[in-house]
Amino acid sequence: MAMYQKPTSHVINALTGQMGGFTGRYEKRLGDLAGIYADEVAFQQVLKTSKDRVVYCVHDTRPQQDQGDLIFGTTWMKPGKIGDEFYMTRGHIHARSNRPETYYGESGSGVMLLENPEGETQILEISERVLVYVPPMWIHRSVNTGPDPLVMSFCYPCDSGQDYEIIARSGGMAKRIVADGNSWKAIDNAAYRPRSAADVARVLATAN
Amino acid sequence: MAMYQKPTSHVINALTGQMGGFTGRYEKRLGDLAGIYADEVAFQQVLKTSKDRVVYCVHDTRPQQDQGDLIFGTTWMKPGKIGDEFYMTRGHIHARSNRPETYYGESGSGVMLLENPEGETQILEISERVLVYVPPMWIHRSVNTGPDPLVMSFCYPCDSGQDYEIIARSGGMAKRIVADGNSWKAIDNAAYRPRSAADVARVLATAN
Repeated sequence: MAMYQKPTSHVINALTGQMGGFTGRYEKRLGDLAGIYADEVAFQQVLKTSKDRVVYCVHDTRPQQDQGDLIFGTTWMKPGKIGDEFYMTRGHIHARSNRPETYYGESGSGVMLLENPEGETQILEISERVLVYVPPMWIHRSVNTGPDPLVMSFCYPCDSGQDYEIIARSGGMAKRIVADGNSWKAIDNAAYRPRSAADVARVLATAN
Repeated sequence: MAMYQKPTSHVINALTGQMGGFTGRYEKRLGDLAGIYADEVAFQQVLKTSKDRVVYCVHDTRPQQDQGDLIFGTTWMKPGKIGDEFYMTRGHIHARSNRPETYYGESGSGVMLLENPEGETQILEISERVLVYVPPMWIHRSVNTGPDPLVMSFCYPCDSGQDYEIIARSGGMAKRIVADGNSWKAIDNAAYRPRSAADVARVLATAN
């Protein structure tokens, strides 16, 4: 008899991001997120008292590493800001850059900040029962712009991989998401260095 | 500049299964579902008055047909029975049999009836915020066992394809889901013909 993976079911808690039957889990604390916020003085100030504050937590299930399978899970992100810049994930492009991802709002409110290798930005709001589709070739980072935790479930091909360095290499993403009264706005990131044609070609070359 | 697909967002209505920004939609009416229920007399009786009754409706978004991309969407299924057998989808295995799928409960209650090519059955209940993972190589059919519409969202690799005939070729799935008081139970399908070793090998051979 062939070996078959067992079908599984996973209860998702929309408020806590807990997912039953997960196989992996990681947290990112403030102390892990040096360099991603514009206001370094504010960051260092918060770090003094809150280095271990969990900013976001991911549960996932990785059923199999073969091509064609799927990884799925949840992200929980604390509400808050460093200076006027909202808490966000570190962000990534898939190591195989043409792999997509779906994010589905479970609770809270935020935005998906997307950037293609040539520097074009797209920003999509996400909240309960809004599905955001991240197409192949887009760098993506989620941002909690609301007063409550932002919880999303996600799904992506298991052979995607993550390139977390692409954002650091360009001095951040082209836009930053900051407070604007009770809402949010996107402003230019002064430290951003657009990718060269050679940089873009290297990213596109990982597609397969 | 390279051509990039545009990121999109899609609001899902948990009660109606409507999804914003869909690119495809199909309905299955009672008249399309001849042969899937055990009680042919009851089926013909209902058909006389309700041939055009929509049993289920699928919305999906197929962003791109390349390998590595994802298809996502929603299924809405009416509550009801033919004889004592609950309304269900026609069911399929992926044409590339090692492609998986996630189903996520939006509202209502039902079961995912799963069967591997060698005839082993697994049954998982699904309701709001329960994610059912259909691993590679499993035939799957959803069944509405509740009093309300069953609505689920789903995601699967875009190169999966569907083989809808695998179930008909074996005289149905090995188990049927029927009413048991206010609940459900699985009973043997008397018409079921197990797949031969050659049949199994043909299904496994479509994996890639």
